[in-house]
Amino acid sequence: MARNTQVSADHNAPPVTRTLAEFVVNHPSQGWSDAVEHEAHRTFLNWLGCAVGAAHHESTQAALAAVQMLEPAQQATLAGLGERVDMASAALINGISSHTFDFDDTHLKTIIHPAGPVASAVMALAEHLGSSGREVIDALVLGIDVACRVGNCLYPDHYDRGWHITGTTGMLGASMACARLLKLDVHQTQMALGLAASQPIGLREQFGTMTKPFHPGGAARAGLMSALMASKGFTSSPKALEAPRGFAQVVSTKFDWSEIDSELGKRFEISFNTYKPFACGIVIHPSIDACVQLKNKGIKPEQIERLDLRVHSLVLELTGKKEPQDGLQGKFSVYHSCAAGLTFGRAGEEEYDDALVNRADMQALRRKINAIVDDSIDEAAADLTAHLTDGTSHHIRVDHAIGSMENPMTDELLMGKFHALSDAVLGESQTQALIDQCWTLGKAPNLKALLALCVPKK
Amino acid sequence: MARNTQVSADHNAPPVTRTLAEFVVNHPSQGWSDAVEHEAHRTFLNWLGCAVGAAHHESTQAALAAVQMLEPAQQATLAGLGERVDMASAALINGISSHTFDFDDTHLKTIIHPAGPVASAVMALAEHLGSSGREVIDALVLGIDVACRVGNCLYPDHYDRGWHITGTTGMLGASMACARLLKLDVHQTQMALGLAASQPIGLREQFGTMTKPFHPGGAARAGLMSALMASKGFTSSPKALEAPRGFAQVVSTKFDWSEIDSELGKRFEISFNTYKPFACGIVIHPSIDACVQLKNKGIKPEQIERLDLRVHSLVLELTGKKEPQDGLQGKFSVYHSCAAGLTFGRAGEEEYDDALVNRADMQALRRKINAIVDDSIDEAAADLTAHLTDGTSHHIRVDHAIGSMENPMTDELLMGKFHALSDAVLGESQTQALIDQCWTLGKAPNLKALLALCVPKK
Repeated sequence: MARNTQVSADHNAPPVTRTLAEFVVNHPSQGWSDAVEHEAHRTFLNWLGCAVGAAHHESTQAALAAVQMLEPAQQATLAGLGERVDMASAALINGISSHTFDFDDTHLKTIIHPAGPVASAVMALAEHLGSSGREVIDALVLGIDVACRVGNCLYPDHYDRGWHITGTTGMLGASMACARLLKLDVHQTQMALGLAASQPIGLREQFGTMTKPFHPGGAARAGLMSALMASKGFTSSPKALEAPRGFAQVVSTKFDWSEIDSELGKRFEISFNTYKPFACGIVIHPSIDACVQLKNKGIKPEQIERLDLRVHSLVLELTGKKEPQDGLQGKFSVYHSCAAGLTFGRAGEEEYDDALVNRADMQALRRKINAIVDDSIDEAAADLTAHLTDGTSHHIRVDHAIGSMENPMTDELLMGKFHALSDAVLGESQTQALIDQCWTLGKAPNLKALLALCVPKK
Repeated sequence: MARNTQVSADHNAPPVTRTLAEFVVNHPSQGWSDAVEHEAHRTFLNWLGCAVGAAHHESTQAALAAVQMLEPAQQATLAGLGERVDMASAALINGISSHTFDFDDTHLKTIIHPAGPVASAVMALAEHLGSSGREVIDALVLGIDVACRVGNCLYPDHYDRGWHITGTTGMLGASMACARLLKLDVHQTQMALGLAASQPIGLREQFGTMTKPFHPGGAARAGLMSALMASKGFTSSPKALEAPRGFAQVVSTKFDWSEIDSELGKRFEISFNTYKPFACGIVIHPSIDACVQLKNKGIKPEQIERLDLRVHSLVLELTGKKEPQDGLQGKFSVYHSCAAGLTFGRAGEEEYDDALVNRADMQALRRKINAIVDDSIDEAAADLTAHLTDGTSHHIRVDHAIGSMENPMTDELLMGKFHALSDAVLGESQTQALIDQCWTLGKAPNLKALLALCVPKK
């Protein structure tokens, strides 16, 4: 059974650990286009909304209760909560809450959700250091670049074999973002990256449990601590990423080093970040989008005789649950998701509430949906024909769903999503003020104003 | 390049996550032989001596300095130090110091150093909970059993591909020891094990850097936190160890499930724990043993004309450095190690001091050693012939070096090792009192007396 890993070992890998450390230390502040700069703000905004929204979820609260057993110092803010904890624990907790609804950002090429590990570590450390908003945005862009570039190097084999790639590259990104905030030199930064490389966190087997959102949280914490330890002289292998027994070759049989160093400092992976409009798997987004468009034409649920929905077979394999019994099952039901889109014009976390899923009108509408497998339709598309009670019919074709690279969430939609997540936690006006702070983060002297708005008023 | 892991996936693995959780919860206190009970005390003693000995090492101090940035609560004792930190950080720091000298225990079948992750987590949590010594020994035996059984399941493929198995099974053992201390029920214990399974820590590429001892420390911390989180309701996959995308199948292509559940509760892996007599790689222990025996015959270095040392080729491949320049190189020199054994009758951490390695008498003695490759000699043996200046010669054959399973360290030798590590930190009399506490740990009402003796007097 034993596998001789030496057979496939690459002893001539380029020194990417060093290359990435030099990049993180030396790349100029805001050394990228306005589009990249704006995307960084969108990434932060979307991440923070998700973190606030799940502040009271049982996964966040269970982790917080465990952290409280350590009697942590009140160093850092928790999104949407009044408690304060030490900065490493804050990275953990905010990372957990931001991924709890599966509603955070997605780097589509690798399925990495990069903000969870990176932004969670950055916000906690930046509060402690008093970093400027400029430094925060720089750290976020660079940290996400490292995580996603390493992900590009390993994907898909690394993911296919069972690693939850968000947490197994996130600690690298978080360590580099924190090294940048701490202004470590190249050697220290390289040591931080090496130490982080020993701590990949996450198995896909955990999907459906609280340990899934633990992965980005744990990665945020591990990355932050790696940077702190390196700042105090802790050492690691200077070739921790690329050596034959280093990170990449241990966790994957595919490693394309050029993904790490090509166009480094020119192409930024945060440019390819996307944001979910709907709180469910991305495969049913085109179908929901079509139903939202139908609603926006003024068509109401009671006018529907039958909905013919043509989709790729994968859609029904993954989300073909016709009679979901609770919110979680609703997320795996293209039927419920479409009913929500047609009824409410959205499918956020609230539309996957247990009670809503079991409401009579939703059940009735689901039964009017006739899903038809058609593999001539792309997995990322949907074809909807609504037959109305008055005999007319309406056809809607979605080739690029809202939230895709080709049809990104607008800033307005992102703000609407933030409100839907945060209003119940922080109130509408405080939420709006927090959103405003997010848009001007890069110009803020420090995070104080933003952080104050993350905390519910007593 | 992509590898289809589904080809080799085992979809019919036994439910070992559940089996281990039930074992840890239900196995009776001290439900094993007196020999196992005594070995547990030896394991704890050896671990604590190593941890005290490296308290002031730069790796321990760098990690502690980083932890201090979190302003930790003063919950738990650090071996050999006056500072106190939160219990999770204490698990980390004590785990680092206990492995820093590479002088801790070894489960030879898997090369796991099990006490580092398990005892470090246990001591920190037990102090917080006020656990009895009985509970501590029970947790230690059970935690080590889980770590080593999972190691047996995965070894050697898992190790061969580059994982540092001490840190990649240690978090499992630590989580189970802590679950036992916390008296979690079977479900919570299973969740703790699952959460720990997402956090394997350690790459062999890190050997020779501070990140190597970080691995057991990080594993201790991860295991402790997994148990705390599970105690607060955090969930994980109930099949986290055995599922196709669970821990074992993701980190290894060899998994022999019977190693986990066969003779569970009857055979205890701690029985197979061994302790290093010499602070260097195990491959040169037989040669040092032969030189110590020569010294014990009354032969002095100045009487030596020539030493003919016949060893397996592997010994010189790994430790053939004839002219080491510092202490670390000395650890990879069978010549220096033998010279130390002959001169001082031992080869502890002190005998790998930079200055000592460069002393003229050591250099001269090294040059008198004639190492001869002889592959008819076992890797674990050595054959020494000393030719003296008076024309006589003495022959010593070591087939089972001191510290091996066949020729274990006696309790007296373990105490001598403890003194050599601890006297400079805690003083001789306090060290002896601490040793006495270790031998009676299983009967102690709590750890207070032992922990008070771990702290240097001001």
